[in-house]
Amino acid sequence: MDYDVLIIGAGPAGYVAAIRAGQVGLKTAIVEKQYIGGMCLNWGCIPTKAILESAKKFQKVKNVSEFGIDGVDADKIMFNWDKVKSRSKRITRKLTAGVNFLLKKNGIEVISGTAKISTDNSVVVNDKKITAKHIIIATGSKPKPMGETFSDTPVVEMEKLFEVEDFPENIVVTGNHISAVEMAQFFRLIDKNVTLVSNSDYFLDGLDTYLVEHITKKIASDKIELITDAYPEKHTDGELVFSNKKVKCDLIVNCNSRKAIIPESETPLQLTERGFIKTDDNFQTNINGVYSIGDAGGKSFLAHMASAQGIHVINAIKGIKAHFDYSTYPINMYTTPEIAQIGLTEQQIKNEGYDYKISEFPLSANGKALIENNTEGFIRLLSDKKYGQVLGVQIVAENATDMIAEAGAYLKVEATVYDVANTIHAHPTVSEIFFEAGFDAVDKAIHK
Amino acid sequence: MDYDVLIIGAGPAGYVAAIRAGQVGLKTAIVEKQYIGGMCLNWGCIPTKAILESAKKFQKVKNVSEFGIDGVDADKIMFNWDKVKSRSKRITRKLTAGVNFLLKKNGIEVISGTAKISTDNSVVVNDKKITAKHIIIATGSKPKPMGETFSDTPVVEMEKLFEVEDFPENIVVTGNHISAVEMAQFFRLIDKNVTLVSNSDYFLDGLDTYLVEHITKKIASDKIELITDAYPEKHTDGELVFSNKKVKCDLIVNCNSRKAIIPESETPLQLTERGFIKTDDNFQTNINGVYSIGDAGGKSFLAHMASAQGIHVINAIKGIKAHFDYSTYPINMYTTPEIAQIGLTEQQIKNEGYDYKISEFPLSANGKALIENNTEGFIRLLSDKKYGQVLGVQIVAENATDMIAEAGAYLKVEATVYDVANTIHAHPTVSEIFFEAGFDAVDKAIHK
Repeated sequence: MDYDVLIIGAGPAGYVAAIRAGQVGLKTAIVEKQYIGGMCLNWGCIPTKAILESAKKFQKVKNVSEFGIDGVDADKIMFNWDKVKSRSKRITRKLTAGVNFLLKKNGIEVISGTAKISTDNSVVVNDKKITAKHIIIATGSKPKPMGETFSDTPVVEMEKLFEVEDFPENIVVTGNHISAVEMAQFFRLIDKNVTLVSNSDYFLDGLDTYLVEHITKKIASDKIELITDAYPEKHTDGELVFSNKKVKCDLIVNCNSRKAIIPESETPLQLTERGFIKTDDNFQTNINGVYSIGDAGGKSFLAHMASAQGIHVINAIKGIKAHFDYSTYPINMYTTPEIAQIGLTEQQIKNEGYDYKISEFPLSANGKALIENNTEGFIRLLSDKKYGQVLGVQIVAENATDMIAEAGAYLKVEATVYDVANTIHAHPTVSEIFFEAGFDAVDKAIHK
Repeated sequence: MDYDVLIIGAGPAGYVAAIRAGQVGLKTAIVEKQYIGGMCLNWGCIPTKAILESAKKFQKVKNVSEFGIDGVDADKIMFNWDKVKSRSKRITRKLTAGVNFLLKKNGIEVISGTAKISTDNSVVVNDKKITAKHIIIATGSKPKPMGETFSDTPVVEMEKLFEVEDFPENIVVTGNHISAVEMAQFFRLIDKNVTLVSNSDYFLDGLDTYLVEHITKKIASDKIELITDAYPEKHTDGELVFSNKKVKCDLIVNCNSRKAIIPESETPLQLTERGFIKTDDNFQTNINGVYSIGDAGGKSFLAHMASAQGIHVINAIKGIKAHFDYSTYPINMYTTPEIAQIGLTEQQIKNEGYDYKISEFPLSANGKALIENNTEGFIRLLSDKKYGQVLGVQIVAENATDMIAEAGAYLKVEATVYDVANTIHAHPTVSEIFFEAGFDAVDKAIHK
């Protein structure tokens, strides 16, 4: 055998698995056909958050006089897409250089090319056969294409976003999930006319319906048109045509649901009904010794879940048995304000038959939120009435995506609302909303 | 008896105790001689963080072009002290109105005046005798005065800061503790020449020496002169005179160590050596039925500890017995970047004889920190080698004061580094540094 582990795809599933494999002493190679870091570092998590950060700053700087700072002429403030792109690319370069360094440091061989899975624990890359005890597929996913009728339409996928030189006035974002909402908000923040078209009933499926209602209202107040009941049929004369309406459209940004990128394999890989690679609880495919992690397996489309799956599989290979927990991972949305969720939704809690309590506390009653002028939002703590166990937490706040980590800690250790209420939170901090919600769950919030 | 509980002082110790007392059905009155909210809401936590927020924005807006935003002329950006003050006062008004509302909602009688403790469970306010089963002193503290030799010198204490119309060029901040460093940085952020004079060897006593070294370097790089070895002897011709040097000084900002505000009492209150009100583990003074919480007791000078003590005493009065835990409270510093600490310092860990490990992870390797352009800082996780228990956490980061809440959760439930490493943190978030430090403590960080 050439390697203990061979990984196909160097995104957040594959590269983290590779580093971990190297750390625990496995002889490891990673095959990447394009860019180290995959979708996440090159077109997804990092670049989209980088350009969103710039877009948020673009709006905030126009309103900085609220803080007693004079001298900004809002009319002169410009969003410089060239500079924003360059900045994002610099960040990506820095992070991918870091990943390359870590791969090297941990003794991982990086092979450029496309891997084909052969028989007998082998893959073929650039016509060369490589053998490995364990093969891990981490090939990721790509958005579903827009369909034939849009073949003459300007459509851009996230992978090509940075090739756009200038954005036109009327942008249509298609998609059902978080990335579609984030991109719609990005274009709205830079003052475009934006329509968000969700082509199914599954708009933001997986989020608590309370949050979905909140987001839907927010989208309306941001003056983004949301169409959830129809899929565009064609594009003609600068308009997107639906059965019952027309929408101005100079550019479609495709944030559609994703489909697996499935590597060629001599023994066919068994797929799920939705077309993802089928695996068991330890991410092993129908082929013995071949695993699938990350988007290609379709169990989650979040980078942190992909990385966690990578670590899980390497641990399993090293004989460390564990149960992969799908109940306590955060779901983040980098809107303004941000939205985050962890644990069970109210709908799941109801379905599981819990006697539960919801404790909500608004940011408008939090001193630090007032100081930061970020009073839009709330925390929502869902707990089991019998034992007080924290079952789920939802946060809408400027910095919700980071704040949800505290909730992750409570869920990880199966903490109760008594623990939350008795954890002393510093004053003045936004995190005090945890303490208030905890106290509310136990008895009564102090500041409510 | 007129009341079950009578509280003297409506700061974060007193007013939280009052609300809690009302919530649990105790007939309660609160006596305040000046402003509801006390030091914290009127001159301390809230106003200082509000003006720091403005000062930070003042610098950030000048550098917004880093994010690809054009059109800000840095030379035209002005810090408008009048507007900053008004904004801070608006926030204070909103919060004190909230406290007033909550006191009313919970049936608390608010009495204006100065309370004198009499005998037989009674106090005298405005020549009127009021009786209560339990009396809680929450009178707070004030800074030590500058001394006779500065009687002709322009000196301002925090309580009078908003009376200053314009700040002169050369500012000297005196004090040993966090508030002194924060104020020194505030004046530096608004482009003043700043000298920070700490009059003892106890500069930032209580913080880990690693953090103190970090802050000391930071102060130097911010071009704030730090004098820790001498106390000014006099002020003459616009200069502060020390035994061995002179410092330009147009205004002294007194952030000196604090002394207790001790109410008059017919039975003398027993004091500690340092002049604070002596209490037992449940905050009872030498007078039966008379408690002392918050700054006046000198056990801590943090608002959140004052509030926690207030809740503790009300619980004790209601018969809920608990041990007040001094080991797991956060200490926050609203500098740029922010600094936060919780749990044991390395020095305390050594003294207690632990076999310990330090896991440090830098922000420069964190994707979200790069996106936010906030790469200065680190997390430092101190854990026990034997069981992996998290003993202390220190964070230097733009948003450290909120991030430390996650560490508070781990410490509260006595979590281990395995819990930290196995808590899935969302990507991309700054909170991933917890996961990295946890992994490092268990074995090896992924991204290091």
